[in-house]
Amino acid sequence: MASGGEVISNKQVIFKQFVEGFPKESDMAVKTSSISLKVEEGSNAVVVKNLYLSCDPRMRFRMKHSKDPGFVSFQPSSPLEGFGVAKVVDSGYPEFKKGDLVWGTVGWEEYSVIKNPESIFKIHHTDDVPLSYYTGILGMPGLTAWAGFYEVCAPKEGEYVYISAASGAVGQLVGQFAKLMGCYVVGSAGSKEKVEILKNKLGFDDAFNYKEEHDLDAALKRCFPEGIDIYFDNVGGRMLDAVLLNMRVQGRIAVCGMISQYNLGQPEGVCNLMNIVYKRIHMIGFIVFDYFPQYSKFLEVVLPLIREEKIVYLEDIAEGLENAPAALVGLFNGRNIGKQVVVVARE
Amino acid sequence: MASGGEVISNKQVIFKQFVEGFPKESDMAVKTSSISLKVEEGSNAVVVKNLYLSCDPRMRFRMKHSKDPGFVSFQPSSPLEGFGVAKVVDSGYPEFKKGDLVWGTVGWEEYSVIKNPESIFKIHHTDDVPLSYYTGILGMPGLTAWAGFYEVCAPKEGEYVYISAASGAVGQLVGQFAKLMGCYVVGSAGSKEKVEILKNKLGFDDAFNYKEEHDLDAALKRCFPEGIDIYFDNVGGRMLDAVLLNMRVQGRIAVCGMISQYNLGQPEGVCNLMNIVYKRIHMIGFIVFDYFPQYSKFLEVVLPLIREEKIVYLEDIAEGLENAPAALVGLFNGRNIGKQVVVVARE
Repeated sequence: MASGGEVISNKQVIFKQFVEGFPKESDMAVKTSSISLKVEEGSNAVVVKNLYLSCDPRMRFRMKHSKDPGFVSFQPSSPLEGFGVAKVVDSGYPEFKKGDLVWGTVGWEEYSVIKNPESIFKIHHTDDVPLSYYTGILGMPGLTAWAGFYEVCAPKEGEYVYISAASGAVGQLVGQFAKLMGCYVVGSAGSKEKVEILKNKLGFDDAFNYKEEHDLDAALKRCFPEGIDIYFDNVGGRMLDAVLLNMRVQGRIAVCGMISQYNLGQPEGVCNLMNIVYKRIHMIGFIVFDYFPQYSKFLEVVLPLIREEKIVYLEDIAEGLENAPAALVGLFNGRNIGKQVVVVARE
Repeated sequence: MASGGEVISNKQVIFKQFVEGFPKESDMAVKTSSISLKVEEGSNAVVVKNLYLSCDPRMRFRMKHSKDPGFVSFQPSSPLEGFGVAKVVDSGYPEFKKGDLVWGTVGWEEYSVIKNPESIFKIHHTDDVPLSYYTGILGMPGLTAWAGFYEVCAPKEGEYVYISAASGAVGQLVGQFAKLMGCYVVGSAGSKEKVEILKNKLGFDDAFNYKEEHDLDAALKRCFPEGIDIYFDNVGGRMLDAVLLNMRVQGRIAVCGMISQYNLGQPEGVCNLMNIVYKRIHMIGFIVFDYFPQYSKFLEVVLPLIREEKIVYLEDIAEGLENAPAALVGLFNGRNIGKQVVVVARE
C-alpha cells in the first residue's frame, strides 16, 4: 500500500517484554528495520528524522502491562516511544513541511511516522539555544517545572522550598525558578557530585545526598530548622514521609512524580499523612499535559531567561541509539546528572 | 485569695494519666472538688455552669504527651477540656453577663472558670432549636462540615461524594449538604443500624458497613462505578488507601480527620498515593479554627435549614457527668450514633 518513495533502513530500540522491578537493558533490543520516507497518499501523517530522544521516568509506566487507559503500554516487539526532537522529512499535514523542526512523541528509532500530528509542536529554532533543550528545559520537563512551581505551588518570596531529585530534568529548574523568586532553596540528590552541582552550579542555598543520610527527618530538620513551605516531590516514598514531619502550616506539596516507587511491586506506605490535617497542607498532584495550552506563554518566559543566562540547564548526553537502553535504565539508579538525552543524529 | 461569694461542690472528670493505645474509662475519674461562683475582683474571667459537653475525636490528641505547641496536652490530675454549652454565672468580661448562654472550650465539670473569654461565643438562643445543637450542628462540628464541604471540597452539582464515618457529628452534615447541592452521596459507617440511618433518615443515596466489607476497594467500586469526585475523609488509613484507587481525575480529598489512626502507636502506611499524580488529585488538610471568622455567616445559612427541616441532626445523648468517660471512649469504637453529647445539666 506504500505510495513508493525511498525506503531506507531504520535502526530501532525495540521493547521486548513487560517489565517487573527495575528495567534492564535486556528488556530492550536494538534492531534494524526499514521505512518509507514518503507519507502515503491522502494520509495526514508526518515522517520525521529523529535527532534527540528524551529519557523520562514516566516511560516506566508504559513498560508494564496496564489496564489503565491513561497509560498505554508499550507494545512488545515494537519500538519504545517518548518525547523527542525531530526534523520533518515528509508531511501530509498542512501545518508541517519538509525541513521543519518539531518536538513531541516519537518512536525510539532513526525515523518515525507520526500518525497523530496534533501531538507534535513546531520549534522556532534559533542558534543561540541548543536544539536538544526541546527535550528538556524547553519541552515537557521545562513546562512541568514551570507549571508545577508557579501554578501548583503558589510560591511567595522568602518561602522555604525543598526539591527531591533536584539535579534532574525537572528539579534543577524548579530550584532555579524558586531562587529567582527569592525563596530559600534546598535540594537532595543521590551523589556527592550532584550535591556539589546543586550548590555551585545551580545556585541552591543548600543540598544533601540522601543516600548518606540514615535519618531523612534529621537531615530535613538540619536544612530547614524553620520547616518547609513548599515541597516539590519527585520521589515519593520514605522521603515524602519525612517531609510531612517537617512541613510548615499552610504548606504545599506539589506531587510531580514518585520515582522511588516506580520499580516496586508494592509501593512503600506513607505513615505521616495526619500532618496534612495538623498543618493544613495542600498536597496537589499534577500532570504536565494539562498545561500544554500554556506552552507558548511558558516559552516567552523561559527563552529570555536562558538567553540572559539567568538560568542554566544541565544535560547528560548519550551518543547514539545503541546507548539509549542504558541511558533509560540509568534514570532509575540515578546514573544521569541532569536531563538524560540520547542523540540519534545532530541534524 | 478568692473574693468571697458562694463556694459550692463541683463534680469533675479528671484526666488521670497520658494514654497510649485506645483510651479507657479508667484513664479518667469522676471526683468532686469545690469552686467559687464569683469572679475574682479585677479579673476578666467568666464563671459558667456547664450544660452540655461535646465528645470530640480530636480530644484524643490532648490525651497524649505532646511536644507540639499546636496540641496542648491535658494536665494529669486536672479536668479534661472540650467544647461545651454553658450558662454564665458571673462575668468579669464586659461582653458576657450573668444568664448569657455561651459555647466554647470549657472543663469537663459542673462549673468552669473561663480565663480566656475570647474563646467562648454568645448563643442567641431561640426555643425552636435545641440548645445542645451548639455542641454539634451549630458549633464546631457544624462549622467543620460546612467549611470542609463548601470551601475545601469546592463541590459541583452532580458530583460523586463519598464520606467515611458518615453518621458522625460531621459526616452526617456533609452528606446532607452534598445532597442539597445535588450530588450523589454515599457514606460508610460501622454498623447495620448506622447504614440504615444514613439511607433512611439522612437521605444518602447509598451506604455500606465497612466492617462487613473484606475488600474496601471492591465496596467502593460497587458504590461508585464511575469513581469518586470528592472524598470527605474522617478516618484515614486503609480506607483512604482504597479511596485513592477509586478517585476520578481532578478529584478532591478533604482531610478532616483520621480517627482510625489516633490510637495506633504507628500509623498505617498509605500505599496508593501515586494516584494523586495520575488523577491530579487535590488532597487538602484543614482545621475548623481557621474558619471561625466565618461563624456568623455559617449560622445564617444553617439555622434556616434546621428551621425549615431541610436538614436533620442526630445526637447521641449521655446523661450526667458520670457517664462522660464512657461516652468519650465510645467514640473510638463507634458506639455512638450521631453526635455524642453529655448532658451535665439542662439549664
